[in-house]
Amino acid sequence: MSDDKAIFAANKKRFLGAWPRIADELTGYLKDAKMPDNAVQWFTKSLDYNTPGGKLNRGISVVDTVEILLGKQLEGEEYYKVAILGWCIELLQAFFLVSDDIMDQSVTRRGQPCWYRVTESGIPPISNVGNIAINDAFMLEASIYQLLRRHFKSHPCYVQFFETFQDVTFKTEMGQLIDLITAPEDKVDLSQFNLQRHSLIVIYKTAYYSFYLPVALGMYYVGITSPALHEQAQSILIPMGEYFQIQDDYLDAFGTPEQIGKIGTDIIDNKCAWPINIALQKAAPEQRRLLDENYGVKNSDAEARVKKLYHELEIPAIYQKYEQESHVRVSKLIEQVDETPIDGASVGMKREVYAAFLRKIYARAK
Amino acid sequence: MSDDKAIFAANKKRFLGAWPRIADELTGYLKDAKMPDNAVQWFTKSLDYNTPGGKLNRGISVVDTVEILLGKQLEGEEYYKVAILGWCIELLQAFFLVSDDIMDQSVTRRGQPCWYRVTESGIPPISNVGNIAINDAFMLEASIYQLLRRHFKSHPCYVQFFETFQDVTFKTEMGQLIDLITAPEDKVDLSQFNLQRHSLIVIYKTAYYSFYLPVALGMYYVGITSPALHEQAQSILIPMGEYFQIQDDYLDAFGTPEQIGKIGTDIIDNKCAWPINIALQKAAPEQRRLLDENYGVKNSDAEARVKKLYHELEIPAIYQKYEQESHVRVSKLIEQVDETPIDGASVGMKREVYAAFLRKIYARAK
Repeated sequence: MSDDKAIFAANKKRFLGAWPRIADELTGYLKDAKMPDNAVQWFTKSLDYNTPGGKLNRGISVVDTVEILLGKQLEGEEYYKVAILGWCIELLQAFFLVSDDIMDQSVTRRGQPCWYRVTESGIPPISNVGNIAINDAFMLEASIYQLLRRHFKSHPCYVQFFETFQDVTFKTEMGQLIDLITAPEDKVDLSQFNLQRHSLIVIYKTAYYSFYLPVALGMYYVGITSPALHEQAQSILIPMGEYFQIQDDYLDAFGTPEQIGKIGTDIIDNKCAWPINIALQKAAPEQRRLLDENYGVKNSDAEARVKKLYHELEIPAIYQKYEQESHVRVSKLIEQVDETPIDGASVGMKREVYAAFLRKIYARAK
Repeated sequence: MSDDKAIFAANKKRFLGAWPRIADELTGYLKDAKMPDNAVQWFTKSLDYNTPGGKLNRGISVVDTVEILLGKQLEGEEYYKVAILGWCIELLQAFFLVSDDIMDQSVTRRGQPCWYRVTESGIPPISNVGNIAINDAFMLEASIYQLLRRHFKSHPCYVQFFETFQDVTFKTEMGQLIDLITAPEDKVDLSQFNLQRHSLIVIYKTAYYSFYLPVALGMYYVGITSPALHEQAQSILIPMGEYFQIQDDYLDAFGTPEQIGKIGTDIIDNKCAWPINIALQKAAPEQRRLLDENYGVKNSDAEARVKKLYHELEIPAIYQKYEQESHVRVSKLIEQVDETPIDGASVGMKREVYAAFLRKIYARAK
């Protein structure tokens, strides 16, 4: 295990250590409201099943950001407070995943059945979770604002916390809408796809909540409220998020199962992914016909024909070039960051906040 | 048409008059974000299909409350501002209804197909709304906070507006959870039902957002922030909401279709409604057996047997008694309201806010 990996594992362990107390607090709200036992058990199960099982990169990034900005390791109650902000992003993520799985009719998530497909809830009188999962998703989202209110009501940036969550949530939902109407799984129409549309989906559906949100919360936490600095953060983190998703899309088609921890299904599922949009841009008329006939078709021969064409169109080389250029572009933006505190803040922005993100992301597939 | 009805019709017309501008503004946010045309069209259609088609009592009550508290008719931009708060409740209601219909697998809503069942969206390339409705529900909810932010950011009660919406939303979702796990449509278990559980469901699922929320927003709008006065408002409006839902439950079983504008299905749908809970309380062992065997059973003979037993158990008389007692109890609470302004507010609470509500509700079935 490299040093970076060891540090990340320790950070993840510490972050997970805060979860039971947060979950207890959230279920406490239902107990305080005199909800019946099985409702409390249900909510407890939904929280634990859906929130802590992922990589937790988004949540941990809030802690990382604050530690870099303050130049110190957080401890005790201060750590807990910042971890709450991180877990609020993980609750937002849980809200999105539980509902996305229903919308996509997915089967598994993080190596277990999707929550809506759980058939042995263990909580009488209901065994199948089914569409109750929709309301559970709502409660995961609402938990964010309960936590913010109880822990940050007296923080000078309480309103910004609240507004940033709302704004990023709305943006993510816009991204989900364009994704859903651009690439329905059962109706292939490649004329709906293009790189501009792909970029819009990726930025709205992923980049804001996965990249800007963790840093924005960290900045507000330490008192960096300058709109100019938040715009700068977006100008760096949104392209990083876009690169991250393009990498994800690329690996779905070209990565080995060992590399990506799953078997890619974007071609079969008619996803508006990066490689198909590049292919559409480069395809000659008969290659386009091949794509129309084989993309989104539910068999592996069709998928293999698409992949073969991706190779003929030299998509791996185009990807390598894009990756390198994107890295250079983002690195330059980071270099330009001025670390002087402004607008009355006691701390300035730190290039290392962005650089740490950049290292994590561009190292993923190496 | 009585005077009251004529006034209500005029108020509704005026309130509906504000909707197109609000809808334009909301779709404007998507245009500003450079969303593609079909996404803007989709959101526009979702807003118009799901928000303005109901009775609009909740939204109009915000306007009524403010007009009573300020002792004047609102006009122009001031009317529009208060109407926005009202429409925010209607957006919350739309969010609940769109998602409830999916959870309940309902077929129609307000005389048209439920949104998730619409098969001719008219917006290419998608014809069936289907589970995209889940994301549409999210966007209806998120719209509330976009409107609050753009219109009330500089209002002294901006924080109270969004906290109240969040808090009431979370309570409603708790109520929905206990309802869903107490009375699943396909698994009848009357041992889960009792009057206490019924009361909890009704208060959380309906009373907070339908009764307390409109008045609370009106109070904050005019600057009544005193926690004591908001507690008093809850102490009056929550029992009123409970009465309203009990009346609704009663009419579902005993009202004529002309009276209630639909055919009651609570018995067939295994709803944890007020009459069944009263019946369970009064039933002798063999009557209980009849209920166990016939409640929630999908045929009209079984339903008729349950209704016959309701009559034998004299539920109409129990209802009349409850209604009268509830009216007396709430009226007394209203009489005790002190109208003197407190906690630095420039206006005091007005008994007429509650009295107007009371008249509307208790008159419904006469």
